[in-house]
Amino acid sequence: MTRRTVMKAWHFVATGEPLRPVELPDPVAGPGQVVVDVRAAGLCHTDISFMNGEVPGMPSHLPIVLGHEIAGVVAELGAGVTGFAVGERVGIAPVLHDGPGVGRDGGYAERALAQVDELVPVPAGVDYAQAAAATDAGATAYHAVSAVGEVAGGSRVGVIGLGGLGQIGARVAVLLGGEVHVTDVRAELATTADLLGAASFTTDAGRFAGLDLDVVFDFAGVGTTRLALSAARPGGRVVQVGAGRPETTISIVDLVVRRLELRGTLGATKEDLVAVYALLASGALDPVISTVGFDAIPDGLERLRRGEAEGRTVAVR
Amino acid sequence: MTRRTVMKAWHFVATGEPLRPVELPDPVAGPGQVVVDVRAAGLCHTDISFMNGEVPGMPSHLPIVLGHEIAGVVAELGAGVTGFAVGERVGIAPVLHDGPGVGRDGGYAERALAQVDELVPVPAGVDYAQAAAATDAGATAYHAVSAVGEVAGGSRVGVIGLGGLGQIGARVAVLLGGEVHVTDVRAELATTADLLGAASFTTDAGRFAGLDLDVVFDFAGVGTTRLALSAARPGGRVVQVGAGRPETTISIVDLVVRRLELRGTLGATKEDLVAVYALLASGALDPVISTVGFDAIPDGLERLRRGEAEGRTVAVR
Repeated sequence: MTRRTVMKAWHFVATGEPLRPVELPDPVAGPGQVVVDVRAAGLCHTDISFMNGEVPGMPSHLPIVLGHEIAGVVAELGAGVTGFAVGERVGIAPVLHDGPGVGRDGGYAERALAQVDELVPVPAGVDYAQAAAATDAGATAYHAVSAVGEVAGGSRVGVIGLGGLGQIGARVAVLLGGEVHVTDVRAELATTADLLGAASFTTDAGRFAGLDLDVVFDFAGVGTTRLALSAARPGGRVVQVGAGRPETTISIVDLVVRRLELRGTLGATKEDLVAVYALLASGALDPVISTVGFDAIPDGLERLRRGEAEGRTVAVR
Repeated sequence: MTRRTVMKAWHFVATGEPLRPVELPDPVAGPGQVVVDVRAAGLCHTDISFMNGEVPGMPSHLPIVLGHEIAGVVAELGAGVTGFAVGERVGIAPVLHDGPGVGRDGGYAERALAQVDELVPVPAGVDYAQAAAATDAGATAYHAVSAVGEVAGGSRVGVIGLGGLGQIGARVAVLLGGEVHVTDVRAELATTADLLGAASFTTDAGRFAGLDLDVVFDFAGVGTTRLALSAARPGGRVVQVGAGRPETTISIVDLVVRRLELRGTLGATKEDLVAVYALLASGALDPVISTVGFDAIPDGLERLRRGEAEGRTVAVR
């Protein structure tokens, strides 16, 4: 293997500033670590929140290479690493605060460093873009729906926002046996909802609010928590996944009188990622993914910010 | 028993208007019903929310006699009623939507009608004012702390607002083995907190916010939900009991990033009331109660609205 000494990367330097193209030293795998040749890195609303300075304490330091959804090829093994071989296709399971693109340099670069216990093999039939999107959008949506929302056969489920996570969450809820009702302001997503197996789709918040659902997922988080609560049955539950705006106003009279529950969720476990890879490999889960080149990462984030992205956006090399 | 044909009562006639003194026909116990001679009726913030028109669908109709915290003496038994005798001291367990002062005429009157299965005997040593306050303030606070908040030995507990319910909730949390931290804007309540067995008291919201607690109870609900969330540890829980203002703004970034849970609670079970009566009879629970005469119910509600009431206010005859 010819050793490059530098790699191209995008640096997040200061709050409110666009990402800056830089050349950085190639990462070197220390003990227990692996260098991953990044083939795909997903673009996330959380990156935008980070760049707006909306998440206290995250990322852990500046400048940093963002990008916390990474799939690629094992390029180098550090001392003591077993169970993986150079050339193997892997995804990096999300580890939040300490993970790539949050607590250390991430995937908006040619190479990224991972701890070996963060790696999950990518099954045959799952491409790099899918594999990257699965590490956060996929695993987080799966975790929200299965572990936090406790969706099971017969659950009456609501989904607000059919973006990158919402489409995966809605599909997972269908696959778990839920009757899934979707709302999104974009009327053209009616077809997507239908393909996902949703029982209904509406752009009419008033109509959605009356559905009396067991559990409602707010994947948008743009002042939509109140709508989610109003669509839940008495004693029902809302799971907050999206945080598109930092604050939201809710009716506490509704919360108290109808004894509702609001749960925030973030991240997932390695087991969630394994489950999502299995669903992707089976073809039962086939999320809409838009790809851009690595050079276009800032443009892709800007489209995401404007709400113009279709499905999950993933940068591929 | 000499039969009166009319009784004095307070009517809630229209949103935004003060209660009106009226004379109403004496209630008559139908099958399965009991007439209770009202000896004490608690004054509740919920009455004020009702009078402001802030709770959709409650009360069920106008005009209505408010007053949903009632204790008194069994005065008349309807057909088929067993298990209770005329002259017995009873409290009426809260039944929310269909209950007295919400779905039918309540306790701001000389007599009130109850279903026999709503009655709980008042133990010796518990006076009428305590017995009335226990039916809603007591049982609701107990339910919130034990069933919804799941406080147990060693729980690190926060209490916001040491009013009628808050003082009972704080004491119940202490009795369940919790380490209880209290905040209230009224500095003079430090002594009360100490008497209740609280581990700390502060008027400083910033200090309270850093306490990293397992579960925080917001008994105020005056825009304080955000403070409650900020005082919870990652993965912790907030129980919303008070709804002093109809709306509240929260940080969904905080909710999501720290995976917090917000649960609304209202009401209680008959078993909760039985438990509270036992704690009152034992002396372990001894809430601060201010009494007013029945003629002063409108004045008492006005003091409650202005935040001037000390502990729970109960009208006694």
